[in-house]
Amino acid sequence: MNKIRIGIAGYGNLGKSVELGIRQNEDMELVGVFTRRDPSTIKLITAHLPVYHIDEAQKMTEQIDVMVQCGGSMSDMPVQGPLFASMFNTVDGFDNHARIPDYYNAVNEKALEAGKVSIISSGWDPGIFSLIRLYGEVILPHGKTYTFWGKGISQGHSDAIRRINGVKTAKQYTIPLDSAISAVKRGDMPELTSREKHSRDCFVVIEEGADKAQIEHDIKTMPNYFADYDTEVHFITEEEFEKSHKGLPHGGLVLRYGKTGLKEEHNHTIEFKLDLGSNPDFTAHVLLAFARAAYRLNQEGVSGAKTVVDIAPAYLTNKSGEELRKYFI
Amino acid sequence: MNKIRIGIAGYGNLGKSVELGIRQNEDMELVGVFTRRDPSTIKLITAHLPVYHIDEAQKMTEQIDVMVQCGGSMSDMPVQGPLFASMFNTVDGFDNHARIPDYYNAVNEKALEAGKVSIISSGWDPGIFSLIRLYGEVILPHGKTYTFWGKGISQGHSDAIRRINGVKTAKQYTIPLDSAISAVKRGDMPELTSREKHSRDCFVVIEEGADKAQIEHDIKTMPNYFADYDTEVHFITEEEFEKSHKGLPHGGLVLRYGKTGLKEEHNHTIEFKLDLGSNPDFTAHVLLAFARAAYRLNQEGVSGAKTVVDIAPAYLTNKSGEELRKYFI
Repeated sequence: MNKIRIGIAGYGNLGKSVELGIRQNEDMELVGVFTRRDPSTIKLITAHLPVYHIDEAQKMTEQIDVMVQCGGSMSDMPVQGPLFASMFNTVDGFDNHARIPDYYNAVNEKALEAGKVSIISSGWDPGIFSLIRLYGEVILPHGKTYTFWGKGISQGHSDAIRRINGVKTAKQYTIPLDSAISAVKRGDMPELTSREKHSRDCFVVIEEGADKAQIEHDIKTMPNYFADYDTEVHFITEEEFEKSHKGLPHGGLVLRYGKTGLKEEHNHTIEFKLDLGSNPDFTAHVLLAFARAAYRLNQEGVSGAKTVVDIAPAYLTNKSGEELRKYFI
Repeated sequence: MNKIRIGIAGYGNLGKSVELGIRQNEDMELVGVFTRRDPSTIKLITAHLPVYHIDEAQKMTEQIDVMVQCGGSMSDMPVQGPLFASMFNTVDGFDNHARIPDYYNAVNEKALEAGKVSIISSGWDPGIFSLIRLYGEVILPHGKTYTFWGKGISQGHSDAIRRINGVKTAKQYTIPLDSAISAVKRGDMPELTSREKHSRDCFVVIEEGADKAQIEHDIKTMPNYFADYDTEVHFITEEEFEKSHKGLPHGGLVLRYGKTGLKEEHNHTIEFKLDLGSNPDFTAHVLLAFARAAYRLNQEGVSGAKTVVDIAPAYLTNKSGEELRKYFI
């Protein structure tokens, strides 16, 4: 069997998780990692494999079947997405929701020109949660969909705290509120404010002599990030931080509530819940499943940008239709 | 907009639910119902629409875009499935798991000949649960999938009780056991027996003078249906039965537990849970979403038998790719 030859672009948390994830997919092999840093400064976790400067990728279009993009959605991907789409099949977890349409168009143009497949926004949200939102709406047209995140680490919110004067390091947990989830399941179809859906729990290590009251105030009043939420701030020691807040757990919940029947007398709830020990690991695993789909679709002559809803689930596996009908249906 | 013209074959609980479900899908209209009974004996719930004898279907291939098959999987569909596939796009909830491969082949042959699309086994299990089982396995290859059913009415088990001498009527609830669900979520990856996964709760109305002890014994020792489970039998009055056990609620749970990381130190759980006020209504709604996909795929020139894993989710909706990227991803 020819293995699917994977390249990793970007070697942060997500890139490392992709490296590990490939080991669970027997039909894939890692060709190498591409970085904007000096390649000699990077050592892979598992393998004695080459690390290339990202500019070398263009010479390797024959050696890589799918490039898994692990850069950031803010500044890396808007540039790298279309660029890699002009060379390789690609997959990414582009998660800047508002800019997905523009990003899709830019990637689609290059992928079509190159005759390659690029599956964008394919992590868990956007990604798997998007799929569930779609399934929920088509099955229960008279209903309402709710997405909750957490309990887990929001990297954006943790970063925002770390930028405050006097903060040494911090982690922020997003917590979905049971009261909101119960109301949805009960069939109230509530309109929920940000504050009613999630609370925010912050664990902060401060510099010696920093002003706790000021930091707490700065966090709780920060617009967009914290001002619209009930936020708790816990000051902890560096030891406590290292011991209890090093991981990157996350998770979330998509709930679709809907009604059916002659007088819409029947209530239905579709609930999809993720409880993730490692956010980057899970995201990486989703990307790899869609990398397989990108490869298989391209083998069949398909090209262009796709999102998760464009992918028939059977393409995510290397099992035959016969096996799927026998063991999964 | 041209509406998708739907025919319903079979007018039991499921057929009635499809009739009602069409009213929630603005891009669909009901053409008529087809039955093996005398059409004059059937009155539709909502509409003054024609009821035809099933033999008339063959004259109506130009008037119906998708035939939704609502017969039974045991004896109706093995005959009607291939027959209708030779005339129309079709969708069904064929749920005889062991016979799906044969059924697929029989339907596929006719659908290919006719240039139509037939989506088989597309209720919630098989159907939506099959999709989740596939997504779970491709995302977390090192893991284990568990399916639990209930709490809800099992029609097959209720029927089995009703066949016992002295039983007037009965309903059987399948109940998933919390102890098993907890063990799965905890990451024990247990091997579970039937008895460890579900219990069975029976509500029985008996004929006057019938032997309760004998009936209870007959239920609890019935092979396949009850002998392998912890079963409770409650004898109730007809009034109590009418008041509390008339509905057809159901539900269930697919759980995928998996591990990731260098030493597989991270635990992940994917949980998909249905809580259904009406089993036939929900099944009907799933069938209708896949009816739309069958129609749209056929419009693009696709033919043959498909299962839910062969269908890109975007085909389940009439929203454009642009709308999907903007609102669902």
